[in-house]
Amino acid sequence: MSAPAVFNRLALIGMGLMGSSIARAARAQGVANSIVGTARSPATRRRIAELGIADHVVETNVAPGAIVSDVGSVKGAVVRDVSPHIPAGVHFIPAHPVAGTEYSGPDAGFAQLFVNRWCILTPPAGADPAATERLARFWRRLGANVQNMSAEHHDLVLGITSHLPHLIAYTIVGTADELSQVTRSEVLRFSAGGFRDFTRIAASDPTMWRDIFLANKDAVLEMLGRFQEDLAALTRAIRRGEGETLFDHFSRTRAIRRAIVEIGQDSPAPDFGRPHPALPHEGLPRPYSAES
Amino acid sequence: MSAPAVFNRLALIGMGLMGSSIARAARAQGVANSIVGTARSPATRRRIAELGIADHVVETNVAPGAIVSDVGSVKGAVVRDVSPHIPAGVHFIPAHPVAGTEYSGPDAGFAQLFVNRWCILTPPAGADPAATERLARFWRRLGANVQNMSAEHHDLVLGITSHLPHLIAYTIVGTADELSQVTRSEVLRFSAGGFRDFTRIAASDPTMWRDIFLANKDAVLEMLGRFQEDLAALTRAIRRGEGETLFDHFSRTRAIRRAIVEIGQDSPAPDFGRPHPALPHEGLPRPYSAES
Repeated sequence: MSAPAVFNRLALIGMGLMGSSIARAARAQGVANSIVGTARSPATRRRIAELGIADHVVETNVAPGAIVSDVGSVKGAVVRDVSPHIPAGVHFIPAHPVAGTEYSGPDAGFAQLFVNRWCILTPPAGADPAATERLARFWRRLGANVQNMSAEHHDLVLGITSHLPHLIAYTIVGTADELSQVTRSEVLRFSAGGFRDFTRIAASDPTMWRDIFLANKDAVLEMLGRFQEDLAALTRAIRRGEGETLFDHFSRTRAIRRAIVEIGQDSPAPDFGRPHPALPHEGLPRPYSAES
Repeated sequence: MSAPAVFNRLALIGMGLMGSSIARAARAQGVANSIVGTARSPATRRRIAELGIADHVVETNVAPGAIVSDVGSVKGAVVRDVSPHIPAGVHFIPAHPVAGTEYSGPDAGFAQLFVNRWCILTPPAGADPAATERLARFWRRLGANVQNMSAEHHDLVLGITSHLPHLIAYTIVGTADELSQVTRSEVLRFSAGGFRDFTRIAASDPTMWRDIFLANKDAVLEMLGRFQEDLAALTRAIRRGEGETLFDHFSRTRAIRRAIVEIGQDSPAPDFGRPHPALPHEGLPRPYSAES
């Protein structure tokens, strides 16, 4: 093993995709001397014990003199709601690792989830700098890059980079499913034309996303307003046949993709690197019958 | 080699992502006895010759008594514009393989592009059934499933499964880039929260997509109207704090993703199967410096 542990005891309250990924990564990196998993339901506690990703599994957890943190997607609301319950002498440093998948639960977690992703810390005014730096060290050891900002700014930034994209994806997938002129079977079959890219994030946990939109209402509505203005402008260009306006807009957005790939936040492989089955030289791959 | 060639001579007019993928797949499957590549620019003709993906490369191509087809994303406009120029005795059978990537040009093509994807044929009224079936056989040999429908219905189906998703993606990527409260660097860094999924299709060829929106204006505006109604309903639910409405909607869209994966139109791997670099046990992966 390499560097010494950052924490003697790492107590994880909730062991779904995020908590179980943290447990796996923390163990792989030797970041904590012991890991305690906390889960409310007996079924989840049994599953965590079976997976062997924590040293102890308990129903509730107390943390005297500890750093209390979280991994939630909205930070203003958590500071407002949790701060009053933090005892004196305990450090409350909210965190948001910007990483995840469309799956949920302790089986979905994996140790590499945070590598090369960014973790945002939103220490409240007056937070202990040593505690903040210790939490930053923890996240860096899990492979993440760390950036500090205010909870208010975090909620605006994630409003555009995460919450609005999810709202739009949830909307368009619902729209496609309710059309009378196009059947669901057609939507599914021809989804490779672009639609399927939206279905991944529209398959995210419904409970979590309900709570995110309610907790970050103001920033989401603000970003939605901007999006609506831009959509109205492009709609007008289509209606009026203004090809140059469309071309200029579409050329600019291409540069954003290139920049995301350049800073290592997405793969340069075509089609997200989705697998493409080989062509058989004999016989035909015909998993579904053709219709005429 | 397996089955006999479907065509003696396959003349490809345009050798970008689609044409060069067809050439590669047709050669791998022995579907044509000879492949003629046609490209307007001398540079592209040179590149095709270097890649060795056609037997001959020429500037223009004539097809006496042949089947003329295409791979365009809009079918009503192509039937209207091309039909008057098809000589008597030549079969015009428009086609649309629903497959592609965000890259363009002859280097971007690969033989497996069409495997397990759907190719839609839109034979006009009175088209020769034997010619239609021969073209269907050709696409099946390249690994595709084939379905026939009218050009009008095609344009509605692709309006929702491809054109609207591209318009929405182009819009939101542009919106994010023009915000005053959030910097471009923040948008790029925290794009793994969902935004980066939209940037892939917003990086598609600007010229092609300008033409698609102008050629399929009516269906795109129709689908956009439905989307706007649904977005207004979800916006209202967020504004009013109606959690149950949000939860119900988000639960339904999850089922669509599951169905797309079940019929083999997307990978079940989390995060589209994007690569996740390993955690180092010693030292830290720190490609970018952290800021505070």
